[in-house]
Amino acid sequence: MLVGELGEEALLEKMRRLFSSGLAASPANVIIGIGDDAAVTVPAAGSEVWTTDLLLEGIHFQPEWQTPRELGHKSLAVSLSDVAAMGAAPRYALLSVACSASTTVDYILELCHGVACLAAAHRLKVIGGDTTASGGPLVVSLALSGVIPDGGTAVFRSGARPGDRVFVTGHLGSAAAGLLLLMRQAAGDFPELREAFVRPEPRVQAGMRVRQHGGTGMTDLSDGLAADLRHVCQESGTGARIFQSRLPISDALLRASRRFDFDATSLALEGGEDYELLFTARPENSNWIASAVAAAGVRVTEIGEILPAEHGLLLSGDSGERLFKERGYDHFMAG
Amino acid sequence: MLVGELGEEALLEKMRRLFSSGLAASPANVIIGIGDDAAVTVPAAGSEVWTTDLLLEGIHFQPEWQTPRELGHKSLAVSLSDVAAMGAAPRYALLSVACSASTTVDYILELCHGVACLAAAHRLKVIGGDTTASGGPLVVSLALSGVIPDGGTAVFRSGARPGDRVFVTGHLGSAAAGLLLLMRQAAGDFPELREAFVRPEPRVQAGMRVRQHGGTGMTDLSDGLAADLRHVCQESGTGARIFQSRLPISDALLRASRRFDFDATSLALEGGEDYELLFTARPENSNWIASAVAAAGVRVTEIGEILPAEHGLLLSGDSGERLFKERGYDHFMAG
Repeated sequence: MLVGELGEEALLEKMRRLFSSGLAASPANVIIGIGDDAAVTVPAAGSEVWTTDLLLEGIHFQPEWQTPRELGHKSLAVSLSDVAAMGAAPRYALLSVACSASTTVDYILELCHGVACLAAAHRLKVIGGDTTASGGPLVVSLALSGVIPDGGTAVFRSGARPGDRVFVTGHLGSAAAGLLLLMRQAAGDFPELREAFVRPEPRVQAGMRVRQHGGTGMTDLSDGLAADLRHVCQESGTGARIFQSRLPISDALLRASRRFDFDATSLALEGGEDYELLFTARPENSNWIASAVAAAGVRVTEIGEILPAEHGLLLSGDSGERLFKERGYDHFMAG
Repeated sequence: MLVGELGEEALLEKMRRLFSSGLAASPANVIIGIGDDAAVTVPAAGSEVWTTDLLLEGIHFQPEWQTPRELGHKSLAVSLSDVAAMGAAPRYALLSVACSASTTVDYILELCHGVACLAAAHRLKVIGGDTTASGGPLVVSLALSGVIPDGGTAVFRSGARPGDRVFVTGHLGSAAAGLLLLMRQAAGDFPELREAFVRPEPRVQAGMRVRQHGGTGMTDLSDGLAADLRHVCQESGTGARIFQSRLPISDALLRASRRFDFDATSLALEGGEDYELLFTARPENSNWIASAVAAAGVRVTEIGEILPAEHGLLLSGDSGERLFKERGYDHFMAG
C-alpha cells in the first residue's frame, strides 16, 4: 500500500504503535509519547544535551544504496554520534519524515524499524515526530536529547591543551570508501566498507567512558579527521601534530585502495561520515582512558598530540611534516 | 552572496552569531549553545514538553507567498502552537535548514531573524541546529522543548468530559482563506487573512492560562476545527456539539467570502493552519477560564459542548443538526 492511499493520520497511528511497542522499552519517565500535540516527560537529574540532523535523498543518500531499515539506523546514528561526542547518554528522539505519496507504507515502517532497533540498543525512546508529504525527495529529520548525570560535565571541543594526546575510535576513511564504492556500484565485494557508510555504529559507550575518565576535548568525525580536528584546535586555541603512520586504516580499505587506486591516507584524513570519536587526554591519563574505551569493545588509537596554536595542524609522515589542507567536505560547495 | 559561495561552515558561524546576539536573551541555564557537537543545558524544575515540525517548499509554502522573515516566524510558530496546546512555556529550539547552493545568504539569515524575533518574544533560545544542501526545495525543521513548572500538569487531548464547554481562541478559517487568496494572487486586499496564514501568532500565553485555570482538554487547530475536535473527542472517548452560529469568523473573512464566493463556514470548520487553541472546561469553571484567556489579550469564544460518545460530532445550525464530515486536510491525499 502507498502512503498516499493510507493517509497521514493512519500512517502516524502505525508509527505510534511501532514506537510504543516492547522493542523500545518505555522509560518510566515518559508521561505521554506520540499522540498528543507534544510529548511530556520527567526531566533527568543532570545536564541535558540537544542535537538535530537533517538527511535528504539525493544529498546524503540514494534510495538504492541501502535498505530503508539501514536508512533509519543511519538517521538516528548521526545524531547519536553527536550526543556521544559530549559524553552523554541518549534519552529521547523526535523523528520527522517527509516522503512522496507514492512511497510504500512498508518502506516508511521499515525505516521506523531501523530507528527503533538502534533506539532500543541505546535505551532511548522515540517520543514524537511529524510526517508530511514532500514534492519528491525523502527527508528525514531527527532531534535527540541526552543527559549527563549529576556531577558530570560534558566534554567540549574547546577542552584540548598542548601536550594532550589525540585519539580516535575505530577505523578512518572506511565510510568515504564505502560511499565511493556505492557510487561505482562496486560495494558488493567490500561489505565492511559499505556498512561503514550506510550503517555507522555510534560510539555512545565509548563517549561516556571518555567523559568518565577525564578526557579533555572531544568531537565526532562527521566532516573528516582534518576538518573535525581543526574544529577542536580552533575552539581550544591550539595546534596539533598527527602521525600519518598511526592512522587506523582497515584491511578492507587497503584492499579496496589497491583495487580501485584510492588514496587511503586521503580518505582517512579528509573522508567524512565515519562517525567515530576524536578525543584528547592529558598524557598521564591517556593509557587509562584508552583502556577504558577499549574495554567497551571499541578500537582506540593514539594518532598524535596537541601543540601550541602557532604550530598549526601538522601531518607528520615519512617525508617530513606538512600542514593539513584547509577545508573538509562542504555540502554546499560539493557541486 | 550565495550560500554555495559562502560555504556551510561560514553560514553556520553567521547563524551562531545571530542566535547568540542580544535579541534572544540567553537564559542562564544554557551551558553551551550552537558551536559544539551538541548543546548542553541545565534542566528545568517541572515536566518537559517536546515537539517537532517539518516545513517544505512546494508543500507548506511557496517562496513568493511570504518574506523569509515571515517564513522563519511561521516555522517556529507551528511548533510553539503545539507547546502552547499542552499549556507549557517554551524553552529551547533546534533549527535545521536545507536549501540549494543558489539560495542567497541574506535569505537564510532573514529566515533565522524571523525565528529569532519570535523566539525572543516568547523568551526561548535557539541552541542548535543543522544546515545542509538540498537538491532544490527549501526545508525547515524545528524541534522545540518547553516546560510545565513543578506542580503543574499538561493539558491533554484526552481530558474532555461530557458536559464540558468547548472554546476556541481567535478567528477560524482565516488562514485557509489567506492561503486561497495567495494561490489566486489576490491576498493584497486582505492583509489580515494573508497574515493569518503566513504569520500565525502562537497562543502561548493563552495555553498557559488554560492550564493554570483548570482546562480539561486542549489541542491546537492545525488540521481544521472538525479534524482537531475529532482528535480531542477520540482521545477523550466523547462526542461533541458545535453551534454553527457561534463560530468566530472575522469580518475580513466575511468580506472575502462575498467577493470570491468562499464558504466561510466550511473554511472555519475544515480549513487548517489557524494555529488557534481549542480547549474544554467544566461548566462551573468556564467563565473563569474564558476571562483569564481574554485577559491575555486573546479573543475567546464558547462554540459548543462535549457530549457522550454515542452522539458523535454534531454541528448544530439553522436547519437542524448534522454530523461533521469524516476527514480534515491530509497532506498525502491532497495531491
